[in-house]
Amino acid sequence: MANAPYDVLCVGNAIVDVLAPCSEAFLDQHGLVKGTMQLIDDAAAHALYAAMGPGTEVSGGSAANTAAGIASFGGHPAFIGKVATDQLGEVFAHDLRSAGVHYGVPPAPEGSPATARCMVLVTPDAQRTLNTFLGVSATLGPHDIDEDLVVGSAVLYVEGYLWDAPDAKAAIRRAMEVAHLAGRKVAFTLSDPFCVERHRDEFLELVTESVDILFANEIEINALVGGRAFDAAVDAVGSMVEIACLTRSEQGSVVVPASGAVVTVPAQPVQSVVDTTGAGDLYAAGFLFGLVRGRSLADCARLGGLAAAEVISHLGARPQIPLADLH
Amino acid sequence: MANAPYDVLCVGNAIVDVLAPCSEAFLDQHGLVKGTMQLIDDAAAHALYAAMGPGTEVSGGSAANTAAGIASFGGHPAFIGKVATDQLGEVFAHDLRSAGVHYGVPPAPEGSPATARCMVLVTPDAQRTLNTFLGVSATLGPHDIDEDLVVGSAVLYVEGYLWDAPDAKAAIRRAMEVAHLAGRKVAFTLSDPFCVERHRDEFLELVTESVDILFANEIEINALVGGRAFDAAVDAVGSMVEIACLTRSEQGSVVVPASGAVVTVPAQPVQSVVDTTGAGDLYAAGFLFGLVRGRSLADCARLGGLAAAEVISHLGARPQIPLADLH
Repeated sequence: MANAPYDVLCVGNAIVDVLAPCSEAFLDQHGLVKGTMQLIDDAAAHALYAAMGPGTEVSGGSAANTAAGIASFGGHPAFIGKVATDQLGEVFAHDLRSAGVHYGVPPAPEGSPATARCMVLVTPDAQRTLNTFLGVSATLGPHDIDEDLVVGSAVLYVEGYLWDAPDAKAAIRRAMEVAHLAGRKVAFTLSDPFCVERHRDEFLELVTESVDILFANEIEINALVGGRAFDAAVDAVGSMVEIACLTRSEQGSVVVPASGAVVTVPAQPVQSVVDTTGAGDLYAAGFLFGLVRGRSLADCARLGGLAAAEVISHLGARPQIPLADLH
Repeated sequence: MANAPYDVLCVGNAIVDVLAPCSEAFLDQHGLVKGTMQLIDDAAAHALYAAMGPGTEVSGGSAANTAAGIASFGGHPAFIGKVATDQLGEVFAHDLRSAGVHYGVPPAPEGSPATARCMVLVTPDAQRTLNTFLGVSATLGPHDIDEDLVVGSAVLYVEGYLWDAPDAKAAIRRAMEVAHLAGRKVAFTLSDPFCVERHRDEFLELVTESVDILFANEIEINALVGGRAFDAAVDAVGSMVEIACLTRSEQGSVVVPASGAVVTVPAQPVQSVVDTTGAGDLYAAGFLFGLVRGRSLADCARLGGLAAAEVISHLGARPQIPLADLH
């Protein structure tokens, strides 16, 4: 892969997570579907927050977690996403920069909506249920994309969640064009099965036309290709993108290249799964870190699995130890 | 102990902790004294925050942690302390209320200083070094003390740290008077050896004149009585207060009653000490919960040790499991 000042430019929602353990009954009472992400407005966010238990605030956001993971491997990531001029915005920017991620987007001026927050409810089975108030993050638009940064990054990585931010789509499509014109690769994650359902036609077109490297878990890829069998999905994606990375939780991951053999890599053993938040984000971090450094697809998938295993062994969606020590 | 709607009214600084692991070298570089608390102004807080790694935000504050601990045991605590109208203030109030603590102090109006935050740097030996920006918490004054709440609480528990907030002293002295007039007990923690050094004469007078139950660790009590030998400190406090609880880390605690035999209770075993933040706060929670329920001094000290052992086994200064399940 061509040399560039930055390994991966990650673009996504800039979110602070509020983690709290909760019971299965709590999910039922509030009509929440375990394992998925739902968008909520300010009023619903306040109501849910009032009902839930004491929380822990940690910076999150899918693509931002991926950026932090790449930095933890010793890579050089950058991030684009929008925070407000408020305390959670300060927390988000600090955590990202101090993790080693280049983050130059100025906070939105006072009077804008608040920094996005996501209430992450973790049930005793370590599954997480996400409830996101997008706030100012939903205002990400074309003027926020630094095209020099796109040109200067070996890979442009975009989260599907951004399709829920109305002004972001045009900005992202433009960024993908700029990346391709500069000979860069474009990577994309489907993010969430409900997100795929909301934007299925657009995602299908986008993935086929503009994406080189696709990340999806089993449910998401089935939602995209409209099938139920994993093997059929594997067949389908082979002709859509250059590389498809399909993650299957404890069954590891399957990497489908447009040409060449499908690669199946087992999951890394985990002593105790505490919180699955960030598993997909960190898989992408490991995979892309390896890819930019010219590793084999099998090795990229192994690095993805290592990073995912670390992040699900504790609460929170970013690494707590340097991933560079693991690989 | 006389029945009251609330078991313990805890009064202290309302702080959100920002936890981050750090190296011994980092403490040296920034001239920080391990295991102590220093007060820093806004500029120093920003400089330290910029230099430290990614953080995790959790509600803290010494007396507030004690209140959360009492609620976790199934008790009925209340808290008085001051937050601002900002996001961290919202986080603090939510975490306390959802833990089961009565907290009725309205946030200071917009334009006031920000909610207090404490940068908690945790070294690999699990010791914590505290750097507190008091912000609006330092404006706690007489008008913030709800005297009905003082009268309605079996114990008034005050943190020594409040002596760093200029308007708080008079408010606390008045609250102690009100408590005694209503036949309630007054408990006090020395908080920190440097805090004792800053206010030694006032603390000596306060403890002798107005405090019934004193909490201190070995270093703090030596700083107060001006000695170096623990046995001498034990002798000294016996004549100063009704009950003195002296904590000694892995050596457990020693309870010194004004009349009757000294009680020595071993520490609870801990598999792995992760972060000692909150150990003293949670000891006080267990002890006071037991005391209000008429338990023996030995049993109160055992409950204190149980709560302290739970809180040092994870990052953060509040219980992560219901303490009621432990005792």
